[in-house]
Amino acid sequence: MTAPQPPSAALLTDRYELTMLQAALADGTADRRCVFEVFTRRLPAGRRYGVLAGTGRVLESLPRFRFDAAELDWLADERVVDDATLAYLADYRFTGSVVGYAEGEAFFPSSPVMVVEGTFAEAVLLETVVLSILNYDSAVASAASRMTSAAVDRPCLEMGSRRAHEEAAVAAARAAVVAGFAGTSNLEAGRRYGLATIGTAAHAFTLLHDDEASAFAAQVASLGTGTTLLVDTYDVRRGVELALAAAGTGLGAVRLDSGDLGVLAHEVRAQLDEAGARSTKITVTSDLDEFAIASLAVAPVDSYGVGTSVVTGSGAPTCGMVYKLVAREGADGALAPVAKAARGKTSVGGRKAAARRLGADGRAVEEVLVSGPDDEVRGWVSDDASLRALHVPLVTDGEVDPRWVGADGVRRATERHRASRDELPRGARRLSDDEAAVPTVALRLGD
Amino acid sequence: MTAPQPPSAALLTDRYELTMLQAALADGTADRRCVFEVFTRRLPAGRRYGVLAGTGRVLESLPRFRFDAAELDWLADERVVDDATLAYLADYRFTGSVVGYAEGEAFFPSSPVMVVEGTFAEAVLLETVVLSILNYDSAVASAASRMTSAAVDRPCLEMGSRRAHEEAAVAAARAAVVAGFAGTSNLEAGRRYGLATIGTAAHAFTLLHDDEASAFAAQVASLGTGTTLLVDTYDVRRGVELALAAAGTGLGAVRLDSGDLGVLAHEVRAQLDEAGARSTKITVTSDLDEFAIASLAVAPVDSYGVGTSVVTGSGAPTCGMVYKLVAREGADGALAPVAKAARGKTSVGGRKAAARRLGADGRAVEEVLVSGPDDEVRGWVSDDASLRALHVPLVTDGEVDPRWVGADGVRRATERHRASRDELPRGARRLSDDEAAVPTVALRLGD
Repeated sequence: MTAPQPPSAALLTDRYELTMLQAALADGTADRRCVFEVFTRRLPAGRRYGVLAGTGRVLESLPRFRFDAAELDWLADERVVDDATLAYLADYRFTGSVVGYAEGEAFFPSSPVMVVEGTFAEAVLLETVVLSILNYDSAVASAASRMTSAAVDRPCLEMGSRRAHEEAAVAAARAAVVAGFAGTSNLEAGRRYGLATIGTAAHAFTLLHDDEASAFAAQVASLGTGTTLLVDTYDVRRGVELALAAAGTGLGAVRLDSGDLGVLAHEVRAQLDEAGARSTKITVTSDLDEFAIASLAVAPVDSYGVGTSVVTGSGAPTCGMVYKLVAREGADGALAPVAKAARGKTSVGGRKAAARRLGADGRAVEEVLVSGPDDEVRGWVSDDASLRALHVPLVTDGEVDPRWVGADGVRRATERHRASRDELPRGARRLSDDEAAVPTVALRLGD
Repeated sequence: MTAPQPPSAALLTDRYELTMLQAALADGTADRRCVFEVFTRRLPAGRRYGVLAGTGRVLESLPRFRFDAAELDWLADERVVDDATLAYLADYRFTGSVVGYAEGEAFFPSSPVMVVEGTFAEAVLLETVVLSILNYDSAVASAASRMTSAAVDRPCLEMGSRRAHEEAAVAAARAAVVAGFAGTSNLEAGRRYGLATIGTAAHAFTLLHDDEASAFAAQVASLGTGTTLLVDTYDVRRGVELALAAAGTGLGAVRLDSGDLGVLAHEVRAQLDEAGARSTKITVTSDLDEFAIASLAVAPVDSYGVGTSVVTGSGAPTCGMVYKLVAREGADGALAPVAKAARGKTSVGGRKAAARRLGADGRAVEEVLVSGPDDEVRGWVSDDASLRALHVPLVTDGEVDPRWVGADGVRRATERHRASRDELPRGARRLSDDEAAVPTVALRLGD
């Protein structure tokens, strides 16, 4: 079942994409074949790898990137662009091609995580929405991966919807699952992407009732003994007693949402065990981040509910990904590398392919950026068994590859992330500040 | 003209809101009259005030908070809730009342920025979407206010869409304008909220062309001499020469997007003035935040384009606002204050009104939280001329007050923010780390 979507994503765009289009249509450069690369110049301070997420959402947004009557009328009323540009936009369809890292893949500085090829006109219009999606979703996934790594085999559950824009919350849930989270509290994310949804009750439910015992009784009566009872509204020890009185030793779980979680978890585990509730689980949920999760490794905790820190990227709420023109057809019809040259924010011209070099133990040792003549780079396949090529086709001549979208896309991305993270060098998953886990190096073809 | 909206916002919600509803419907407590308050326990470290934003978006979301067939079918298929709950949801309309701070108002720790009253069932369902909106939009507005304050009378322009989720970007543009930004690059925000949109060209436009001169010529030919030319793709001095060659001394503006902006602005101003382009403006746009803006106060800069830092709240990407049950009808039919009592995350029970106490100079000296018997607090009006009451009606018996929504709502919020900030104590707008600008104190009625 597909959730209703806003009919057009075309105005989720910076105005300058349209004014550039107008000027390029007027002087004939709009039809020049162009290659845009998406990459980040650096990882957030201290991070050892990033996790690409949002690719599936980019592909899902393409069919919605249409200028319908409502959009064209507004652009005309506001005189954003001229009539020739409006006519172009009315027929706009992306007919180019996109390759990129598979969603869920680890990335490093300069990794060309997406490469968009088409005319200037069709490719430039996508800049804003592509970056919005990849920058937010990858920020969440990059943080989430550190959390699931710290949690080892205990499930992490995403509960941060209230600390993110309401639609960003849906994307955050999806990105967290790509990076190994077991489920989310967000219902819309469950609907759109087939994710497991979780949650039972908040403090308000206990406070609504005349006392904790009647709240627990009501919850167990309605949701069953397998439910999770929140036991820290008043006194935790008394809360656990009442929870067991309401549900018996078959109680599913208790939740702790405040206080010193490590100490409380030990006390509550002992209390549950003494009462014979050995199968009752403990879930904790108070302002956790990857460091708090790591510090709870020795506590008898069964799952972690994570909110604010995962939806805000745990200190890095956006990636610095940029969408840069790296090659374009010149007046002579040949594709030529281009790059900004003035001080600051320089980049390397020309299309790049990318590969991860693996050592004898199967672990990554280098991120290899492959450059050279455009035709060779575009069709690059290596017979070097130590190199794993990273680009997969995402859109070919305007056709979106359906493997990467919807619930299937999320499942594939989750698998890719697990495999990609397992392949990182030993130590790459340490939480302490350090450099990128592997260096990025250049490999030059054909000269 | 109204932008198309997704048909239902009802699943932008944590699952536990619905499971609590199910349990409360089953035991009859769902109909208890409840008061929920939205407040934050603390401001981000070092901040002196927060800025409420998103109120208008909350009100706009209410009519879209409907469980239509698509939502009900999914909830049924997934067995999220039972049939009785589905029947309740099918007829769901919020019929309660909401008061709150006017959008744009400054807030402090514990300020009850929104108070929702209704049955438990109707009020609890709104928790997630209310917090998602207020937490994100207020985070942006709180950062944006420091930027417009630092910029004094130079315009700030919001350009951060690419560094935020694509729909969050629209909300960020709106919140930035509430806090005094003069416009945004985001077209959808322009459409939905009647905001001024800005932007002309990126480096890609220059690189698309065979040389900078032809790029500038094309832009001026299409967009007019009043356009803004981006002059830092190659060499800035040469860029300015070519810009003036293309547009003449009537050129609207040049934009600098990299390098040492303070030094460059002085050099470029001198170059423009020497060439007679005294009216040509200089706009700067490279990773600015409130501190960078303040440091450019002495540079000849005419406007600031701000991206990442404003859409990510400049270090505080979400507010810590919570939605807490503070009073509810008990078994005896009387409204009684309630509050969580265990260690950590405690709150104060009972409905609060709020006022700002002003000194003889008209500046704020205290945030006053007025508590006491519920009826007196609800109808609280003070005859103390030093107290400015802060709650305004937002929703009355399910009817949204139209003053606060849409483009009109944004205009009102912008005015409210300007007045509210002007009323803060001297020094409240310093950027250096400090305590909340005024203390929050309790005023008790009727006893």
